Formats: sequence, C-alpha cells, structure tokens
Amino acid sequence: MRDTLEGRSEEEVLSELSKFLSMDVPYSRVLSSMCTNPHPIAVKAHCMFVRSNLGDPGLFPGTAEVERKLISILAGFFGDENARGYVTSGGTEGNIQAMRAARNVSGIRNGNVVVPESAHFSFLKVGDLLGLEIRKAKLDEDYRVDLGEVERLIDDRTIALVGIAGTTELGQVDDIRSLSKIAEERGIFLHVDAAFGGFVLPFLGIKDFDFRVKGVCSLTADPHKMCMATIPSGVLLFRREEYLRSLDIETPYLTSAKQCTLTGTRPGSGAVSAYAVIRHLGFEGLGRIVRECMRVTRLLKEELESYLTPVIEPVTNVVCFRCRAEKLKAELLKEGWYVSTIRRPEAIRCVIMPHVTESVALEFASCVKRVLSSSPSSFV
Amino acid sequence: MRDTLEGRSEEEVLSELSKFLSMDVPYSRVLSSMCTNPHPIAVKAHCMFVRSNLGDPGLFPGTAEVERKLISILAGFFGDENARGYVTSGGTEGNIQAMRAARNVSGIRNGNVVVPESAHFSFLKVGDLLGLEIRKAKLDEDYRVDLGEVERLIDDRTIALVGIAGTTELGQVDDIRSLSKIAEERGIFLHVDAAFGGFVLPFLGIKDFDFRVKGVCSLTADPHKMCMATIPSGVLLFRREEYLRSLDIETPYLTSAKQCTLTGTRPGSGAVSAYAVIRHLGFEGLGRIVRECMRVTRLLKEELESYLTPVIEPVTNVVCFRCRAEKLKAELLKEGWYVSTIRRPEAIRCVIMPHVTESVALEFASCVKRVLSSSPSSFV
Repeated sequence: MRDTLEGRSEEEVLSELSKFLSMDVPYSRVLSSMCTNPHPIAVKAHCMFVRSNLGDPGLFPGTAEVERKLISILAGFFGDENARGYVTSGGTEGNIQAMRAARNVSGIRNGNVVVPESAHFSFLKVGDLLGLEIRKAKLDEDYRVDLGEVERLIDDRTIALVGIAGTTELGQVDDIRSLSKIAEERGIFLHVDAAFGGFVLPFLGIKDFDFRVKGVCSLTADPHKMCMATIPSGVLLFRREEYLRSLDIETPYLTSAKQCTLTGTRPGSGAVSAYAVIRHLGFEGLGRIVRECMRVTRLLKEELESYLTPVIEPVTNVVCFRCRAEKLKAELLKEGWYVSTIRRPEAIRCVIMPHVTESVALEFASCVKRVLSSSPSSFV
Repeated sequence: MRDTLEGRSEEEVLSELSKFLSMDVPYSRVLSSMCTNPHPIAVKAHCMFVRSNLGDPGLFPGTAEVERKLISILAGFFGDENARGYVTSGGTEGNIQAMRAARNVSGIRNGNVVVPESAHFSFLKVGDLLGLEIRKAKLDEDYRVDLGEVERLIDDRTIALVGIAGTTELGQVDDIRSLSKIAEERGIFLHVDAAFGGFVLPFLGIKDFDFRVKGVCSLTADPHKMCMATIPSGVLLFRREEYLRSLDIETPYLTSAKQCTLTGTRPGSGAVSAYAVIRHLGFEGLGRIVRECMRVTRLLKEELESYLTPVIEPVTNVVCFRCRAEKLKAELLKEGWYVSTIRRPEAIRCVIMPHVTESVALEFASCVKRVLSSSPSSFV
C-alpha cells in the first residue's frame, strides 16, 4: 500500500492511465449499449466547462443560462414550450424524480405505480427508494404494454402510470395516446420514459409520445444516448410547475435558495455538451444521423432474417433475433463482438448506435452467419 | 425558435459557448464554495476518459479497474482496507445511499434518522425520498452535536445516527467516538458525512472520524471538494458487504448482473480524475495543500478578529465571523467577493479552498476592513 501514498510525476500517472484506457472496449464492435462515442463538439464543449457546477448556479450564471436554453429548446421539441425541468445525470434520475413528484403531489402514502413489464430496471430503484409498489403490466403480442392489464392494475393507491417510448430491450414504443386517455379519465399522473426514444422518434415522424399528448405530465430523455452528448446528460421535463416545485428543498448556504435536483453538486459539462451538439447539427443534422441508424438497422435485419427470426419489426434502431441467446452471445464475444440478450422471448439484442456504421453492421452480420453455419443446430 | 433548429458551424457554436463561459465567476474571488478549480492532472485524466461509462463496467474494464484501485486506496486511507463501495456523483448520493442501506438492512418501516442540526441539506432529500423522519439533534456550545439530545431522540424506529466530519456551515467535527459508543450500545447504524472533512482531517492528524472508530458503518467523502478532482466525484464506503448488497437490483441487459449505484449510466471521468490527483500528489502532497489552506484560514481569522468575532476557532479550513451577515455579504459582492452566510448564529462564512491563496485572503481581508470602516455601526 505504501507506494500509493507517494507522489509520482504527471508523465508517469498519465502513462499508467493510458494503460487502463486501452483496456476499455472501443465502441466500434459494441452492439450492446445505448451509449456511443460523444460527438467531437460535445467533447470540446464538455472540456471547456469541466469545472462548472450547476449545483451552485449563482457562481455559474453562464452555464446556468446554457442549461435554461437547452431546456427551452427541448421543451419545444417535445411539444410544450412551457414545460420546465433540468439536466439530470440520466434516465434513472429522471424516472426517480418524476415518480417522486407524482407521489408528492398525489398525497397518497404507500402508493403504487403501474409500469409496463418492459420498463427499465431503474424502476426497481424507484420502488425501493420511494417506497412505492411497482406493478408490472403484461405486454401485448407486439411487446407494447397491454392496456387492459394497465386498467386492471390501477387502484385507489395508484400514483402514476408509466409509458415507454423506446423500450430498452426491443426499442418498442407503448401506445402513449391510449395510456393518456386512461390517465386522464382516472386523474392519474402519466410519465413517459423516452430515455432512448426521445432523440429517435421525432426524427422518424413519431410525435405522439410527448407533451403533444394531453395526459403526459412528465418526460425523460437522454442526450447522452442518441443525441451524442457526453455522460452525464439527461433531461427531465414536467408539464406543470407544481410538479417540479414538489421536489424543492431549502439550500441555505448556496447562491440559490431552493434545489429541486436529486444531486447537489452537479456538473455543467454534460448539459453544455448536449447544447453544443444540438446547436451544431441542428435537428436536421441529428435527424440525418438517426435515419441512417434506422437504415442500418433494417439492413442488419434483412441480412440475418433468413437465418434468425427478428422478434419485432424494428420501430427504433434496435433489432433482436430469436435464438439460444447466451450461447450465441458467448460465441460472438470470442470474435470480439458485444451484444446483449433478452429473456422473454429469448433473443440477442443489437442496438444500432451511430458508431455501428453500414460496414460495421455488415462485418457483424457475416460473423453471425459464420458462427451459425459452423454449428447449425446449436443456436436456433 | 426556428434558429435553434438549424445547424451552425463548430466555430460559431464554440464562440457562443466562450461567451457563456466568461459569464461564470472565476474561483479566485469565491469564498462561498466547497468546490475549487480541479487540479490540472484531474482535468487531463477526466478528458482522457470522457466517454467512459462505469454503469456498464464490462465494456470499460480499464476504467472499472481504476475505480477499484481508488476505492481500495481510500478504504485504507479511511481506516479499513476491507471497506467496499463505489464512486458516486457526490455527497448527496452518498448520504441517500447510506441511509437507504441502513433502512433496508434494519427492516424497519416508517423509520427515523437522528442527524445533527448542522447536517447538510441533502438530508431533507433523504427524508423525502426514503420516507424517513429526519430528527434534528441540537448542537452544543461548540456547534458539535449534543450527545444527550441524540440519545433523547433515539427510539425503536431509529434506523441510523449521522455524524458530520466537517460541517458545511462551520467546518466543525462531531464527536464521532461518542456517537459510535451510543450506536454500538443501541445496535444502530452510524453514518459519517465526511463529504468536506474526509480529505482535510486526516492531514491535520485527526483520524477518529472514520472506520478506525468501531461503530462507523458507512462514510462518504468527496474528492471533488478538497481532493481537487473534477465534478462529479464522490466516494461512498461501507464497512460490511451486506450494506452494499442491500442496494443491489438486477440489470438484465448490461455486462454486469447487478447494480448498487443510484444512477445507471455513470461517468468514469470523475473517478479517474480523483485517482490521478492522489497518484500524482500522493497523500504527502495533498497534505501540504490542506495544511497551507489551514494556515491561510488562521491568517484570515487573525486579520479580521479585531473587527469581527469568529464563531468558533477553525477546526478545518472554514472560518465564520459574526456580523449582520446578509448586509455585509451584499457589500462584499459589490466589490466582487463571494461569501455565504449562516443563520445560527448570524455570520458570514468563508471557505478557504486551495484557490484562496495567502494573497487572495489578504486582499479579501482588506476589502472587509474597508467596508466595515466605511460604516462602523452597520455590520456588527
């Protein structure tokens, strides 16, 4: 242990770090992640604002102004320019804080939340943290939440419904319009988890998942996924001020009097990186990247569908193929490819992020075909 | 709104960002914050690892190894080399997660936590999030938690006691040994919030606040404060594995099976920056910086004590002076100086971070004297 206590030269430390950096997996062969290499302008903006702390906005009024501009742009983008919110550490914080607001405004103790079975695992954290029962509604045959199941699970203690716009497993989108109708009829808060789909769906012409749908009370979307911002960069938006205010606590020794965020000290770098990407590419430029990801997703599906059955026709840039998933995943890993697996139905899952270009996808497809043909009965 | 949708050149975007960056306050005149300029090697390390995601450690085994090494070094530094934990987004997450573990292991519903009145405002978030009653114990005349008050507030539903090692307002340190004795006698979890003091006290020879004290079950300390790491970089440590495991949830589609952190996607950059600072300076180098901050703290106290009465003799690098605080703060702000205020007793608060060098402190002291002498009866 003694050696760790003595100082070393900058050169020596950075060279040690380079060694660790080289152990990390380059994204070029990763189809298992919803993150990607940040856009070069995101990295530049991030490093410019590396010291800035949005937890103390009076000291960082410039960074705070960038955050306000980003929130305002995204409020409009998601269909309600009066929506308000802040830049989070990502979708998990967005889901926690949305459910905390719903619970606080409801005034119900020991409440429950009805989520699709396809909801992200962060809802397990929500349940444990907030003392809420998480009721999982079964999916229909298209792997969207079954609306009858949602209605069946609602009771007097239901403080929120959740719809997913771009599920983690299949990239599927729930029927937010119908969920909204149920939520409005019952007077229940509706949260949309668009962590993945928020920066995909609008560019595919799908807009009925956000504040354009009347019953949607909150929405979370992650610039550090398909908007190519740096980590951590998520956005949480509420339709009404009272929801955000229900998260406030007093902050006596800061330059602001109240704080509604989950964390205290809060990096400005991720927020600024998201703003930089959106300003630089514009929504038109972002749209081109998303549509190219969709084209490559369909290409990969076509390349492999005579070998493996896709679980659904891709709605976003995720494609899953039915197979003996853990076995195929392990074989692909031996060839240097990272995919993940899903359980119901058993399938491998490929997320076609911007780093998965056409040539990467084709190389991956030939590897899959090679592995499958080496032992035709082992994987299907 | 239309203009925000169109792409702009990289040059144009970065020049817009420079304008916002220049609105932020340079730390050189800030005495109100427990953050500081990150060490140059922290910034270099951070930018090297800007894309890395500790939320998916199988893709970032190199970054995950740096996190493990950091945790191992700090476990030893805080007195129990077998302590385990992870790199958080900061002290607020540390306090939330420690209380969540204490609650989960206790098995008590509708529990309470006994904290000093001097506890950080993040405990208000803890109470709201976790559904715990936060019982505030009064302080003694030295502004340490009154042990009799703590004992009086404990009941069958008390799931944790909290001690502060470096309070946010005064930098005071609670009597952790005595709190530990109470906690052990009653069989209650003891958490130490050393967000600020964790990287100060050991260098001043004060070591009886950490795992060296037998009843301490968890400890949080922030490298992004006095260890000059980048934001976000906090550390949460538990003495026993079961506490950390009580935070686990299953994570089906990642490269790891379980996740105990509060957030999902989690930047590696802050963790690596903390490791880089500690490796480069060593604990000896960090100690020199801390002791210089203490020397400047005492200097500032001596410069001003014939004008204003210090609330306590500084224990860490924080000094507070009794006065009509909001009024003096406003006058100092006109001169470009940032201090914060505390309410009980009414005082201005000066945190002497590494950016507050001797010459900065002397310049600040003359400004205070000038303001005071301009209107001798207004501020005291």
